[in-house]
Amino acid sequence: MDSRSFLLSISLTLFIITLTSHASAQSIIQIPSHKTQITGDRKIRVDDGMYCDSWRFSVETNDAGIWEYVPSRCAKYVQDYMTGDRYLSDSEVVSSYALNFAKNVNVSDDGKDAWVFDIDETLLSNLPYYEKNGFGSEPFNEESFDMWVDLAEAPALPASLNFYKELKQLGFTIFLLTGRSEDQRNVTDKNLLFAGYSGWEKLFLRGLSDQGKPAALYKSQKRSELVKEGYKIHGSSGDQWSDLVGFAVAERSFKLPNPMYYIP
Amino acid sequence: MDSRSFLLSISLTLFIITLTSHASAQSIIQIPSHKTQITGDRKIRVDDGMYCDSWRFSVETNDAGIWEYVPSRCAKYVQDYMTGDRYLSDSEVVSSYALNFAKNVNVSDDGKDAWVFDIDETLLSNLPYYEKNGFGSEPFNEESFDMWVDLAEAPALPASLNFYKELKQLGFTIFLLTGRSEDQRNVTDKNLLFAGYSGWEKLFLRGLSDQGKPAALYKSQKRSELVKEGYKIHGSSGDQWSDLVGFAVAERSFKLPNPMYYIP
Repeated sequence: MDSRSFLLSISLTLFIITLTSHASAQSIIQIPSHKTQITGDRKIRVDDGMYCDSWRFSVETNDAGIWEYVPSRCAKYVQDYMTGDRYLSDSEVVSSYALNFAKNVNVSDDGKDAWVFDIDETLLSNLPYYEKNGFGSEPFNEESFDMWVDLAEAPALPASLNFYKELKQLGFTIFLLTGRSEDQRNVTDKNLLFAGYSGWEKLFLRGLSDQGKPAALYKSQKRSELVKEGYKIHGSSGDQWSDLVGFAVAERSFKLPNPMYYIP
Repeated sequence: MDSRSFLLSISLTLFIITLTSHASAQSIIQIPSHKTQITGDRKIRVDDGMYCDSWRFSVETNDAGIWEYVPSRCAKYVQDYMTGDRYLSDSEVVSSYALNFAKNVNVSDDGKDAWVFDIDETLLSNLPYYEKNGFGSEPFNEESFDMWVDLAEAPALPASLNFYKELKQLGFTIFLLTGRSEDQRNVTDKNLLFAGYSGWEKLFLRGLSDQGKPAALYKSQKRSELVKEGYKIHGSSGDQWSDLVGFAVAERSFKLPNPMYYIP
């Protein structure tokens, strides 16, 4: 198999897996609340808080597969998580591990040592939008979200902004790879600058030929272009597994928390 | 590139990544406890409980990379997690998602629809051993762990035993793939039967030629053998990322919780 047909076969496989998972992940698991369960010889009492903690475990490890929105019994849990300190603390610790890894990379002078960032819920936080739209417990409304994007007022996720600045200091070449459309380029540039980011090498947005592709395929293809141009992708940061998996993956991938939505 | 040199290149890449990660993951991140941190314009108060929750997030998503043992400030946290209801609840929800996926597989009569299970902290729980050995906060002692394995008394992880039985009912062919050595075959068989498991197709253990290989490589090679024999690996369950990643990966992988130890 030559490398082109290999890439094609991986792309197709990814696509088929996405379709298959989609078909099989429709039903939301419902464990009744406040139910005492016997597991083996031990009783466990699963209340909403514990169930939602376990739901979040399955979501963040990608065990849950594709999901459409936050189960209604976990809406308040996700709100508390996102607006309290836990979300900030989780993203701080992820960024600490990423920085620890980055500091041990031998960055050369040729500018080919790269890091790839996703944008939404990675560099920028759309929390002000989701605060007014049920924290992921309501179906996604593309129209109202695009109006929010056009405002170009999303703040930085603090842990990511600090980490981004450190990476620049270390000499990494930074690429931004987002599922946003090419026609959102200007507002995205504007928002990134507003939030304190600067000095990236290139911002990739979905062009016409990328529309309709699963995110993992689109992002893998873009990373693949970078690899062909001689870049070494040491690290990649994203809040979605589709930011991180597929082909041309980074040496180390860093999954940031996001219990509000899932992008296949 | 032919498929043999492709497999070889993936094996080498995996191996190099493992070595590189090992070199760069030596220092444990220390965020001082009870410190008030300013992140952006918001103060977050990271106490041990919140830090350890965030540490567990990074561990379970594989953001932490290779780690040697549980940070001492999280020893009590891991003990509470493992002996309380949260560990059982987390594994229940993972198994629920896995079962939901399995029920949507079109299982044929040819016996080629396969599921691959890891053993330790997946089918069997070594909690009785770790309870006496610091829940992962002490360096791993191979000698005393092997003595525990020889007793063949590890109980089933309840969620996994239920799920295993359901998979058999659905007609899946079940393979067990463990990092244990070939010379532990008899005690492993005995322990699995003692815990309530039966009817697996084949148990893979590390033979002489597998010694010293990273787990992800060894397990990928064994899964690859299954694929060559015509099996469709629909699902794979394991508590370590090295049970699930590499090549010949399952259509869906299910990461079970384990904040006690990491196997590269």
